[in-house]
Amino acid sequence: MLLRKVSVLACSHLRVISPKWSLLNQRPSHSLPPLTAGAYNVKRGDFAQITDNDLTHFQSIIGKDHVITDHNDLEMYNMDWMRSVRGQSKLLLKPKTTNEVSQIVKHCNERKLAVCPQGGNTGLVGGSVPVFDEIVLSTQRMNNIILIDPVSGVLVCQAGCILEAANNQLSKHSLMAPLDLGAKGSCHLGGNISTNAGGLRLLRYGSLRGSVLGVEAVLPSGEILDCLSELRKDNTGYDLKQLLIGSEGTLGIVTALAIQCVQKPLSTNLAFLGVDSFSNVLSLLRGARRDLGEILSAVEFMDQDCMRLVTTHLDCSNPISSHPFYMLIETSGSNAGHDEEKLSAFLDKIMSSGLAVDGTLATDVGKLQSIWALRERIAEATLREGYNYKYDVSLPTEHMYTMVEESRKRLRDVCLSVFGYGHVGDGNLHLNMTSEKFDPKVLSMIEPFVYEWVSKYKGSVSAEHGMGFKKRQYMGFTKSKSAITLMHRIKELLDPNGIFNPYKTLPDP
Amino acid sequence: MLLRKVSVLACSHLRVISPKWSLLNQRPSHSLPPLTAGAYNVKRGDFAQITDNDLTHFQSIIGKDHVITDHNDLEMYNMDWMRSVRGQSKLLLKPKTTNEVSQIVKHCNERKLAVCPQGGNTGLVGGSVPVFDEIVLSTQRMNNIILIDPVSGVLVCQAGCILEAANNQLSKHSLMAPLDLGAKGSCHLGGNISTNAGGLRLLRYGSLRGSVLGVEAVLPSGEILDCLSELRKDNTGYDLKQLLIGSEGTLGIVTALAIQCVQKPLSTNLAFLGVDSFSNVLSLLRGARRDLGEILSAVEFMDQDCMRLVTTHLDCSNPISSHPFYMLIETSGSNAGHDEEKLSAFLDKIMSSGLAVDGTLATDVGKLQSIWALRERIAEATLREGYNYKYDVSLPTEHMYTMVEESRKRLRDVCLSVFGYGHVGDGNLHLNMTSEKFDPKVLSMIEPFVYEWVSKYKGSVSAEHGMGFKKRQYMGFTKSKSAITLMHRIKELLDPNGIFNPYKTLPDP
Repeated sequence: MLLRKVSVLACSHLRVISPKWSLLNQRPSHSLPPLTAGAYNVKRGDFAQITDNDLTHFQSIIGKDHVITDHNDLEMYNMDWMRSVRGQSKLLLKPKTTNEVSQIVKHCNERKLAVCPQGGNTGLVGGSVPVFDEIVLSTQRMNNIILIDPVSGVLVCQAGCILEAANNQLSKHSLMAPLDLGAKGSCHLGGNISTNAGGLRLLRYGSLRGSVLGVEAVLPSGEILDCLSELRKDNTGYDLKQLLIGSEGTLGIVTALAIQCVQKPLSTNLAFLGVDSFSNVLSLLRGARRDLGEILSAVEFMDQDCMRLVTTHLDCSNPISSHPFYMLIETSGSNAGHDEEKLSAFLDKIMSSGLAVDGTLATDVGKLQSIWALRERIAEATLREGYNYKYDVSLPTEHMYTMVEESRKRLRDVCLSVFGYGHVGDGNLHLNMTSEKFDPKVLSMIEPFVYEWVSKYKGSVSAEHGMGFKKRQYMGFTKSKSAITLMHRIKELLDPNGIFNPYKTLPDP
Repeated sequence: MLLRKVSVLACSHLRVISPKWSLLNQRPSHSLPPLTAGAYNVKRGDFAQITDNDLTHFQSIIGKDHVITDHNDLEMYNMDWMRSVRGQSKLLLKPKTTNEVSQIVKHCNERKLAVCPQGGNTGLVGGSVPVFDEIVLSTQRMNNIILIDPVSGVLVCQAGCILEAANNQLSKHSLMAPLDLGAKGSCHLGGNISTNAGGLRLLRYGSLRGSVLGVEAVLPSGEILDCLSELRKDNTGYDLKQLLIGSEGTLGIVTALAIQCVQKPLSTNLAFLGVDSFSNVLSLLRGARRDLGEILSAVEFMDQDCMRLVTTHLDCSNPISSHPFYMLIETSGSNAGHDEEKLSAFLDKIMSSGLAVDGTLATDVGKLQSIWALRERIAEATLREGYNYKYDVSLPTEHMYTMVEESRKRLRDVCLSVFGYGHVGDGNLHLNMTSEKFDPKVLSMIEPFVYEWVSKYKGSVSAEHGMGFKKRQYMGFTKSKSAITLMHRIKELLDPNGIFNPYKTLPDP
C-alpha cells in the first residue's frame, strides 16, 4: 500500500471539541458585533409586552429560580453561536417538564406573548435566538433519558438531552445515535429534531425523518401533542411528527422524542487523502460507493483554504502533503478484517491510479478524532479570521465546486477568502466567505448571486442548516410557490396568533 | 457447516408471482362475496351525483376512451384484491398527465364529486376502492419513467409506474428500489408512497419517509403541489411531502415522485431455518443483528400453519424438515467472499448451539426466489382456505407471538386456522385467522380483542398496511386523541369538501 500509516499524527494533541461559549470569548476583536433585526428590515410583530403579572404567573409554574430576567444571564441566550444575530429578550424560562412547558405556552398564547424555543443554541441560521423581545424558552433542564432499550435500540429522552451525553449512555449498550455533528457537545436532541439536523452520518444512516420514531410536543395552544411512539413501524394516519421535524419550533416545541439508534460499529477506519482536482474527488466518491458498499460511513471533502484556516487559527497541522483538495473516507463495520481488506484494496487502487496522490489511514479512536477535527473545526477556525458569510447548499455533485470557483472569481477583491467543504457524499456544500468585518456591500455581491446560482442548478438554498432567521426570505429560490403557500396555511392552522418563533423559517407572505 | 446446501430446491418450479386478477378468478367458491359499506355502518356523504355534463367535461379533458362507465369494465376497480370490500362506482377516469389530474380534480371539487384515487389496487385495508359511487381516478396510464440518474441513484417517475417495472429499468444501472413487497408486479410507486408501504427491505434501507426525496401531487382544490425535489438533502421549511406519504390519497393524489435508490448488492444469500420456539426466533434475530451487522437485509418468520397453507394450497413444498417456526435471514453485500464468511460463521454457531435445528442456504437468484415465495405467497394461499381476517400490527418483539397463541386459544372453535408471520426484524406481525365464510360472530370475537391487546402492549394497530376503509375506526386504540384531532384539522384544511377518498384513513370524529 502506498499510504503511510501514521503512528503519531501531526495533530494528535487535538481533541474533537464542540462549540462552547468559552471559545467565543477568545474571538479576535476585529469581528463586528452581531447584527440586529434592523439589518434585516424586520419589524416587531403585534405581540404583548411582559408584565409583572406574567412573571408572577411563570414563577408559580416553574419556581422563581427558573424565571430569569437578569440582563447578563440572558446575554448568551440572546446571541447565536456565530455571533451573527442578537435579540433583545428580557425573559428566560427554564421548565423541567412537558406539563410546565404546556402551562407556560397556554399562558403565552392567551396573552399573545411571543416565544422563542431554544435548545443548545448551536444553529447556524439564527433560528434559536430571539429577534426582538420574545420569551426564550430553554430546554436546558429537560435532560432526562427516559429509556434505552438494548433489544430494539430505541432511545427515549427529553428534548434537552445533549447529543454527546446521550451517546455516552448509548455506548454502554453498544449503540450510538444515527447522527453526528460538530456541535455534539452542546446541541440538544430536541433541537436536532426541530432543525432536522444532518451531519456526518447521514450518508450511512439516513435523515432524522427516517430514524425519529416518536415526538412529544407542545403546540402553540398549549396542548400536548403525544406522538411519542417507540415503534419502528406505525402506519396509522398522517405522520404528524414530521411537521415538528425541521419546523424550527414554529409549529410546536419538541419536549420528548424516541429515536432508532444503531449498533456501534466494531471497526472504524478513516482515510485522509490529498487530491489534485475536484473531478478526482467525485471519481473517488463513486469508487468508494462501489468498492466499499455497505461499510462506507462518510465521504467528506475540504479545499486547501479550509486546511489553511484550521492550521493557521487552531492548533492543528496537516498530516499529509499540501493539495488543492482533501477527502475523508470513513468505513464502519462489524468485522475489522473484512473492512480493512475492502479499504486496503480500494486505497491501493486509487493510489496506483493517481486519483489520490497522498494519504494517511487512522484506525484507533484517538487518531480518528484528530483527523475528524480537521474537518469538524473548520467552522470554528473561520470565526477567527473575520466576519463569516455562511452558505449551506445542495447541488448536483458535478456543479458543487464550480460554485466555489465562480464565487471566488467574483469576490476576489472584497473577501479575505472564499472556500468550500462539506458532505460531498450527500451533494451538500458548505460555501463560506470571510471579510475583515461585516460589509453590506460584500453581502450584496454574494446575495442573491449564490441563491440564483443554486436555483439555476435545481439545488436547495439550505441543505441541512435550515431557514431560521437569516435564510428564510430565500426559500422561494428553490421551493415552489404552491409549497410555500401551503406552509403558511399550516402555520396559520397551528399557530393563529403566530407566537411560536416569529420571524423564522417561512418567508414573508 | 451443518446446513445442507440445496442443489435442487423442493419448490424450484415456483416463481415469485405477484397478485394478479387471474389468480382471484381461481378462488374457491366457498368464500363469501365481498362486504359492502353496509356491513361497516357507513352512510354516503353529502356529495353530488355524476351527470351527463360531468361526463362530457371529463371527456374533453382526457378523451372519450379514458372515461369508462361500463359496468363490467369497472368491476375490478370496484373491488379490492382480497375481495373483502366492494364499492359501487359508475365512473373510472384514466388521466395520463398531472395537468389532466388537476383539471379533473378542480371540476370535482367545484361540483362536490367524491374521488377515489387508485394505483395498483393491491392494498389490504380497502383504501384503494370506492365505498359508494366515488369516481375512481386510476394512475394506470401515468407510467412514464422521467429520469434514472446513475450517479446520484435517483429515480424520478410518474405515480403509475409499477414497482417491478421500475426495478427492471433500475437494474440496468446496478440500482434497485429501496422497497420490495409481494405485490411488486402490480403495485404502483405512487400507491406505495400514498400508503407508506413497508415490505421486506425496510430493515435494511429504512422507510419511505427517509428515501422519498420528492413528491408532486394534486391537492383537493385541483392545485398542483410541486415538491418534486431530487436532492438528498433539502432543509427548507416544512416537509410537505410527508403529508402525502401514508395519507392514502385523502390529502392529495400523488402524480410523480423522486426516490433515492440503492446499489444493487453484488452478493445475496438467504438462509431458511427451522426453529423450535419463538424465543429461539428472537435469539436468532439478535444474533443476526450482532454477527451479520451491515450485510443483514431481511429477517422474517412464519409459523407452521403458514407452511401448511402454502404447501397445501399452492405448488410449494417445504425444503427442510417440519418445525413450529421457520425463519428467512437474508444478507446483501458488496463482497461475496466476506458475506459468505460472515454468514457461514453465524450459521455454524446457531446450528451448533441448537438455536436453529435445520436449514438450507440459497445463493443463486432462482433458489432465492423459490425460498422467498414460501414467505411472499402466504397471503395468496390464505385466500384459498376461506374468508381471511387480516391484522398487521406492531408489537414489542417479546410479545409478538404470544398474541398469536392467545388468539388461537380464543378462536379455536370458530376458526379454521389462526397463524402468524411477518417482519420480525421490524417488530411487525401479520396475524391472520380464516373461517369457512365471513361470520360477524367470529369478527366480534376478534375485534376489539386484537386491538385491545395491541393497545395494552403499546403497539400499533397498523404497522404497514395503513388504515384504509377497514381499519380506520381502530386508530384510537394506539394513537392519542390529540393526534387524531390534529389529523382531522389538517384534512379539513386541505380538503374542506371532503372529496378525496372519503370514508378512509381517519376515524369518525
